[in-house]
Amino acid sequence: MTSFPHSPEFDLPYQSAPHCLIPAPPALPDAPLSLNRWGFADTQFLIDSDGNVQLTGARYALCGQVIDRLLPWSQSQLGLPIVPGDAHPFAWPLSPPASRLDAAALAALQQLLGDDGVSTEPLVRQRHGHGHSQEDIWAVNYEGFARIPDAVAWPRGENDARTLLLLAQQHGLALIPYGGGTNVTAACRCPTDEARPIISVDTSRMNRVRWIDPINRIACIEAGATGAQIHDVLARHGYTLGHEPDSYELSTLGGWIATHASGMKKNRYGNIEDIVIDCRVLTPSGELLRRNVADRESIGFDHRRLVLGSEGRFGIITQALVKVHALPAVQMHESILFPDFATGVRFFHDLQQSGQLPASIRLMDNRQFMLGQCLKPTPAGVAAVKSALQKWYLRRVRGFDLDRIAACTVLFEGAATEVKAQRRTVTRLMQRHGGLYGGAGNGKQGYSLTFGIAYLRDFLLTQWIIAESFETTVPWSGVLTLCAGVRERVEREHRALGLPGKPFLSQRLTQAYHGSACLYFYLGFHYKGVAAPSAMYTRLEHAAREAVLQYGGTLSHHHGIGKIRQGFLPQIASARSRELNHAIKDLLDPDNLLVCGNQ
Amino acid sequence: MTSFPHSPEFDLPYQSAPHCLIPAPPALPDAPLSLNRWGFADTQFLIDSDGNVQLTGARYALCGQVIDRLLPWSQSQLGLPIVPGDAHPFAWPLSPPASRLDAAALAALQQLLGDDGVSTEPLVRQRHGHGHSQEDIWAVNYEGFARIPDAVAWPRGENDARTLLLLAQQHGLALIPYGGGTNVTAACRCPTDEARPIISVDTSRMNRVRWIDPINRIACIEAGATGAQIHDVLARHGYTLGHEPDSYELSTLGGWIATHASGMKKNRYGNIEDIVIDCRVLTPSGELLRRNVADRESIGFDHRRLVLGSEGRFGIITQALVKVHALPAVQMHESILFPDFATGVRFFHDLQQSGQLPASIRLMDNRQFMLGQCLKPTPAGVAAVKSALQKWYLRRVRGFDLDRIAACTVLFEGAATEVKAQRRTVTRLMQRHGGLYGGAGNGKQGYSLTFGIAYLRDFLLTQWIIAESFETTVPWSGVLTLCAGVRERVEREHRALGLPGKPFLSQRLTQAYHGSACLYFYLGFHYKGVAAPSAMYTRLEHAAREAVLQYGGTLSHHHGIGKIRQGFLPQIASARSRELNHAIKDLLDPDNLLVCGNQ
Repeated sequence: MTSFPHSPEFDLPYQSAPHCLIPAPPALPDAPLSLNRWGFADTQFLIDSDGNVQLTGARYALCGQVIDRLLPWSQSQLGLPIVPGDAHPFAWPLSPPASRLDAAALAALQQLLGDDGVSTEPLVRQRHGHGHSQEDIWAVNYEGFARIPDAVAWPRGENDARTLLLLAQQHGLALIPYGGGTNVTAACRCPTDEARPIISVDTSRMNRVRWIDPINRIACIEAGATGAQIHDVLARHGYTLGHEPDSYELSTLGGWIATHASGMKKNRYGNIEDIVIDCRVLTPSGELLRRNVADRESIGFDHRRLVLGSEGRFGIITQALVKVHALPAVQMHESILFPDFATGVRFFHDLQQSGQLPASIRLMDNRQFMLGQCLKPTPAGVAAVKSALQKWYLRRVRGFDLDRIAACTVLFEGAATEVKAQRRTVTRLMQRHGGLYGGAGNGKQGYSLTFGIAYLRDFLLTQWIIAESFETTVPWSGVLTLCAGVRERVEREHRALGLPGKPFLSQRLTQAYHGSACLYFYLGFHYKGVAAPSAMYTRLEHAAREAVLQYGGTLSHHHGIGKIRQGFLPQIASARSRELNHAIKDLLDPDNLLVCGNQ
Repeated sequence: MTSFPHSPEFDLPYQSAPHCLIPAPPALPDAPLSLNRWGFADTQFLIDSDGNVQLTGARYALCGQVIDRLLPWSQSQLGLPIVPGDAHPFAWPLSPPASRLDAAALAALQQLLGDDGVSTEPLVRQRHGHGHSQEDIWAVNYEGFARIPDAVAWPRGENDARTLLLLAQQHGLALIPYGGGTNVTAACRCPTDEARPIISVDTSRMNRVRWIDPINRIACIEAGATGAQIHDVLARHGYTLGHEPDSYELSTLGGWIATHASGMKKNRYGNIEDIVIDCRVLTPSGELLRRNVADRESIGFDHRRLVLGSEGRFGIITQALVKVHALPAVQMHESILFPDFATGVRFFHDLQQSGQLPASIRLMDNRQFMLGQCLKPTPAGVAAVKSALQKWYLRRVRGFDLDRIAACTVLFEGAATEVKAQRRTVTRLMQRHGGLYGGAGNGKQGYSLTFGIAYLRDFLLTQWIIAESFETTVPWSGVLTLCAGVRERVEREHRALGLPGKPFLSQRLTQAYHGSACLYFYLGFHYKGVAAPSAMYTRLEHAAREAVLQYGGTLSHHHGIGKIRQGFLPQIASARSRELNHAIKDLLDPDNLLVCGNQ
């Protein structure tokens, strides 16, 4: 560890620009987060006294509305009764394992970070030992964990992080960097065979937007800043990052880099690899730092490309240079209806080839479209008449089958001329494929739905429904065959596992690329009477993933590998490629201090 | 080497698409290449009996024209006489070093590749021991090399390449992969202290476009295919790759990957990292192969990102999956005049921010604009009157100073509506910045000039002018200060080195990115009477590069590092980052079989 010299000459990672320094923001008044469910503590789905579903709080448009169609529809989808009174309530808090951290190590951490910079509180430690996969949430609420972090540490900056690495080696500790804790790959799970105490390195106090360079439109941001925090600070200065993964309220810049994240508006702002120009990484064997960086270079080896997708295995990502954009002049939601998913895919492919993709566009299959409808209150009064008329028009005039309709949610964003040109192209291609506009309101609801859906998953778990998402990228030519193949395989496996009712499988096409598209699936089943439902789900999803690979899909589009999908790596990369990955890990972290990510 | 198992399960790198198989193309009737100058043997600048310059052959628009203003203008720029009769003719061929390859190794290579698959011919070997930096061309023609490859081998495909790696280990050979031989970083230079025989692995027989997938718009192409070959095959099927580095007639797909290349039309088609979806690499310690690849993934480690820019150090790149595009409906050249370079830069920055960049746009400073003018014949007759009128208009009506004018060459490419929208934006911003259109003819000439300029450099060498290009990426805010800083430093160093006359320094802005721009410089001086002109040039360029870094530029935008710039790496990357690069090299090539690229 004496071989870990700091390189102060690299402390100024970017130069020659007139920076607008951002004063250290006051600690943002973040609402408390839940310790056993997705998101904010003030927000959760509940069943009201009438047996209808409601979302608590006032954070989302959905909050406070009477959601009366969700449970009946879910019942019809799963082929088994969902009885509001018959819940499977969370058993949280189960008592988490005791901390194994010895007094000397704890004292050293406290001396470095202050008393409020370290915690051994059981539920805080437990929260830092998981993400939001179904296995994680199942374990938090019904089964508990065999192993969780033995302490949580909050470094305030690079100096703290550097010293943490030193302390880890001196005291024989293992580390797991922690951003927003939103991963769905078991990346933050503690290896059960890890003998050393494990410290979760929570980066949330490293959350400053340090400066904005308005001429070159670059910002320097600490890795622990969440999407929401970055959004707020940049917006106050007239800028946006444009990176909006579904988790962006909670997930962090460092987490995005480590996961190789993708955002809903990537058509306009790019994915994380397009956004991050440089990042600073402290590895146990030294610092990966650069100077004289720019958007595009040819400098042989560039550690940035290795760190993207590294899942926290190489070190602590401390800050990054990112592209920022002036806030767009125009933001316009829209929705489009197509007679079926296949038609929507053909439209989407044509739109991709036109080069005129809106900032965000997603195509939902009939099930996700219906789910969206069920998350609205049943129309009454004038709205009911209007809704009936709309259905009549769709069915009788346009010949749409309501059980097959697919829908796009669209977000146009940019200069007025740009949005106008995109809308013109969208209209032309929509008409060519027999689609019709469904209105801005539905578009906005569909776009926002993504922020509420994770709350829904945790609620459904208490109603005997276990569900999770998985995703892939697949060549355009394989989109429909992959969907059909995965469905066939899921239904077969569901039967083979002897699971009750019908599996729920639904997909949306969320990102379009030159030669391929991202498909995002929801998979779920009714688990009442099932022994070990979480393990059964894992087996079902494993079968689905086998089908994904069989039909030409990638192992992941943006969720990553983590501990969940690493078993599939031999199918997608040659032995030498995988050995190289491990060898690089050994080089950067010879004592395996960092026990996160794929192993 | 027994640890080098082939993984046949990865032989089909891409699936699920209806491929259009391309029959093995007949050996393309490429014109012979020069062995001591840039490009095709039939093409070179010469001085005719009237003392004017001409370009031989019929390959370029410039060929056969009387270029009467070039030498007088060069003389005025350099401040020293250029006398047509007083040349410094190339001394080529100097006698290259004898081959050190022993008979057993030669026999083994011949057995593998056939008699015509191996050469020990001295001038062929010498050509494979360099690229096209001034140091290279100086050595070829005036000084010779201390060390060149001891044989050239032409593998016909992956099986040959795999066996070559085995033979290298068995017979104690070093290897240097060779594409088009157009690098300007000394990447292909043989280390003089290398004791083993060195084999140049020429990939030119691995040049097939294997298949095109028309639905997903992907092609599978062998690494040795040149830009011109790829262009021809794809165009026959209605497609284009859209990658046009200045060297694209000669440089290869594998070379582009190894160099991290950039093309003139990157605004529309992207740089090489945007184009290549996957690549197959045979390293001495095993194969880096993938399956289930797509445009965008999150799979943890992806060897593609490590191989891009690897400069041939890790292994032999054998083939790649690349994005292809339908041939554009519209191609339209244009040119724009601005009163000066600084105004042009402000226009360019605004255009970048508009998001409406044409496929290609380059801004030349006054010197490069004048160089372009001097490569046309002096106008006579009606053209002379027209030219005089144009000059009068520029000077008197628009108030342009002819000695300060800067010019953009523009290439619009795409659908008609797209080109129309781009042109509208260009017109609006051009007018805002006081520019005016200079016509399609000048635009086309400027765009094409790049293909002839390398011939010019070699010709000028015989006229006592030594010159070379270098490039960087720099934040927009630093463009003008960097240009001024480099100029000041070059002039100072030119004086300090006691060089005669004035240095020639000229820049163009060739690529625009979100936060930065690529600046491409020509640097030259009159070397008559100078001892060791090539070494002097190296010192002058080194000083220029120091200024580039001092003013916030990157070490390279697209030329790469090679053996020329590796000494600067400690200034741009921390020690651990550089050690990591070397450690990865050691992992993949423990016996250092591959002695190319930065070391």
